[in-house]
Amino acid sequence: MRLEEIAKIIGADFSGENIQVDSMNTLKDATSKQISFVSNVKYVKDIKDSKACAIIIDEKNKDSVPDGCIALVVQNPYWEMAILSKYFAPPIEDNTLALAKIGEGSTVSNKAEIANGAVIGENCTILAGVYVGANSKVGDNTILYPNVVVYRDCEIGKNCIIHANTTIGGDGFGFATSKMGEHLKIYQNGNTILEDDIEIGSSTTIDRAVFGSTIIKKGVHIDNLVQVGHNCEIGEYSVMVSQSGIAGSSKMGRNVVLGGQSAIAGHLEIEAFNQFAARSGITKTIKESGKVFAGFPLMEHRTWLRLQSKIAKLLRS
Amino acid sequence: MRLEEIAKIIGADFSGENIQVDSMNTLKDATSKQISFVSNVKYVKDIKDSKACAIIIDEKNKDSVPDGCIALVVQNPYWEMAILSKYFAPPIEDNTLALAKIGEGSTVSNKAEIANGAVIGENCTILAGVYVGANSKVGDNTILYPNVVVYRDCEIGKNCIIHANTTIGGDGFGFATSKMGEHLKIYQNGNTILEDDIEIGSSTTIDRAVFGSTIIKKGVHIDNLVQVGHNCEIGEYSVMVSQSGIAGSSKMGRNVVLGGQSAIAGHLEIEAFNQFAARSGITKTIKESGKVFAGFPLMEHRTWLRLQSKIAKLLRS
Amino acid sequence: MRLEEIAKIIGADFSGENIQVDSMNTLKDATSKQISFVSNVKYVKDIKDSKACAIIIDEKNKDSVPDGCIALVVQNPYWEMAILSKYFAPPIEDNTLALAKIGEGSTVSNKAEIANGAVIGENCTILAGVYVGANSKVGDNTILYPNVVVYRDCEIGKNCIIHANTTIGGDGFGFATSKMGEHLKIYQNGNTILEDDIEIGSSTTIDRAVFGSTIIKKGVHIDNLVQVGHNCEIGEYSVMVSQSGIAGSSKMGRNVVLGGQSAIAGHLEIEAFNQFAARSGITKTIKESGKVFAGFPLMEHRTWLRLQSKIAKLLRS
Repeated sequence: MRLEEIAKIIGADFSGENIQVDSMNTLKDATSKQISFVSNVKYVKDIKDSKACAIIIDEKNKDSVPDGCIALVVQNPYWEMAILSKYFAPPIEDNTLALAKIGEGSTVSNKAEIANGAVIGENCTILAGVYVGANSKVGDNTILYPNVVVYRDCEIGKNCIIHANTTIGGDGFGFATSKMGEHLKIYQNGNTILEDDIEIGSSTTIDRAVFGSTIIKKGVHIDNLVQVGHNCEIGEYSVMVSQSGIAGSSKMGRNVVLGGQSAIAGHLEIEAFNQFAARSGITKTIKESGKVFAGFPLMEHRTWLRLQSKIAKLLRS
Repeated sequence: MRLEEIAKIIGADFSGENIQVDSMNTLKDATSKQISFVSNVKYVKDIKDSKACAIIIDEKNKDSVPDGCIALVVQNPYWEMAILSKYFAPPIEDNTLALAKIGEGSTVSNKAEIANGAVIGENCTILAGVYVGANSKVGDNTILYPNVVVYRDCEIGKNCIIHANTTIGGDGFGFATSKMGEHLKIYQNGNTILEDDIEIGSSTTIDRAVFGSTIIKKGVHIDNLVQVGHNCEIGEYSVMVSQSGIAGSSKMGRNVVLGGQSAIAGHLEIEAFNQFAARSGITKTIKESGKVFAGFPLMEHRTWLRLQSKIAKLLRS
Repeated sequence: MRLEEIAKIIGADFSGENIQVDSMNTLKDATSKQISFVSNVKYVKDIKDSKACAIIIDEKNKDSVPDGCIALVVQNPYWEMAILSKYFAPPIEDNTLALAKIGEGSTVSNKAEIANGAVIGENCTILAGVYVGANSKVGDNTILYPNVVVYRDCEIGKNCIIHANTTIGGDGFGFATSKMGEHLKIYQNGNTILEDDIEIGSSTTIDRAVFGSTIIKKGVHIDNLVQVGHNCEIGEYSVMVSQSGIAGSSKMGRNVVLGGQSAIAGHLEIEAFNQFAARSGITKTIKESGKVFAGFPLMEHRTWLRLQSKIAKLLRS
């Protein structure tokens, strides 16, 4: 889509070069073919280093946009970004794409649906009721158990096992909200990437990124009923136990263990080799490594044990 | 079913007009074609205003039933109601119903199953592995991602998006228990209604009502792995974050935000515009509006923060 | 597989009778046709009573293996057990097995997949998108709602109802971890057994055992989004409310009620007739019976109520 058309959609004045825009992205990750936006004053500092060809921005901050980048000025940049996201959303399926390719030695159930544009590697096992969306790729030797759903444009590595009824690449939970309290979906035009040697349990949900990728790194093991939000990154050999969750844009290093029913809030970073006891609630970035944590609010596990004995004493008071 | 037959099934004496009964309902919501029951002394006060044509009741409370309403006296009304519920359950599928109607411009995968009696609106996208049950209706422009299951008699509005592996209208969790500890299923003969402009994540479960309807109002956004119990009502533009849950018969007003892993107990009412931090535990009706709550037991969020700092001080004692 | 081949796979010296080994099991449950292992010093005491024909064990403990049982000595028995588990894993599907048998009066959707070797009883209802794996059995009158997945070798009793998108017999969460932090899957070669008269909600996951069986006993009711780990045993007429979970190898007696979002840690035993309030966290075996518990750490419910009032008083200090 060209900038002039974009300006029209979001109701911004437009002058300058009518560049062809490929997609949307954050200020930080945008390329010169992408448009970005500033929805929060804390991102103003990122404008100067952004490679975006244009930025949706409000009147107040428009002067922060440097020469050579086009400012599209609107009242509510976050809302307009949501409006625009729909225009960049590809169709769910696309029959103009080539028929799916199935690698040698792979077994695909006739009750599975492999959409046009998808590529299945060699020696894969794709069971009944599986859905692999447009342009998604499944690596060699991977097993998709019945009713696994992989949305379009996702990548699953080699030697992975995905258990029944799990969803890879479903839409992240994102919307803009008007002053009247109405919500507008932000189309999640990124994807989900699973590297090699990953096992994921049943009825787990790993959302696709709003821009860019949600990434599950090599050797990760995820249990049943786990939630991974959009744009998360799960480090190599990390483990997420049943009913745990990680909210949008959080990252964990390698060999982190997240206990059952634990949760990590959004936009945090968790250093490698930390362990979290069951039902931990992590609301702050953790820069230390190799520790054991527990509780909500979170503390070191041994402190949590000491605190519980102090709390128990209250009963005697 | 006629009253005489019902009396026979539940082992009650019968005399009076042999009325044709359409279905079961609560005292409050029953019409003159419906039968109701009193399983708990706290509902005795509702008898006099009930329009039910007959009431299943025990010996002790039978005199509260007014003239013009037939009392069916049994030892254990709740158990007999459970027995009777099975007789009112329609078949899961019904091939005597008309073939499904598919609206103009809609795409229905040949790997989806649209049961007889179902109606799909215009410009819908129904992907592989979807199941839409008997008499269920899907509104215009709605997208059902792969393996979504909609049980019979449900309604989904216009412009909705339901993500993969989600279940709409599954049976609520209801049973009677005998003195010996054995459970008897209460058939869930109500339905689930989703209004317009709703988005629901993956592997979420929205149960059908035991009687009447579970209702998700216009513009609601529900994340992945969320539980909505039978007979709940979720107000307009409310938001339920991943792994949260609301137990049976609770209602929330509009623009409520329920944080991740939070839960609302059964039979409560939550006023509009309240927000609940992640892992809140709500066990009481909330009549205030526009506040932010946290914790379990629940308190205002700022109080919770203050309490946590007090608790942390115990470590120094 | 014969012992000599096994020794070769795991890099152990072998001498003695080259016995044909059927499968792997724990020291306690192994038969004379099974091989076992000692991965933890606490199990050394079980060696002398084990009927296993051979035991994978490290140098340090090898002398505990009695005459008549063959010790296969390796550096890391748990890792080698994981290596070996793959060799005992049957194929996911097996077309050399007989075509599935469908009992009289049963309805099986043509969009369901009943694998070779499976047996469906009489008067069952098997809806679209259901998958029943190799050699699995479904008892008379049982209903499998759309997209239920039953992995191979499982058993479901009579008069059961399994709701949509639920997975029975998915792999338990098991792996060995190397010193470098890499994980190796332990193939879950056991199964899941559901007895009669059971109802299970939507998007619930009941894992198969690593060895032996995960067992759900007669009359159990399980809600939506519940996790049951491998090798658990749920007693007769017990109830698990939505979003609760029980970790591997824990057992509960009959008529236990586990509240919503509660969790039981692994390897525990819970006596019959206990009740756990919502969000209880059970980390110790409970030998008492007939009590009501709450909280995390767990305590009697009345103590929990008293404690909360003490904690609330901290706000006044």
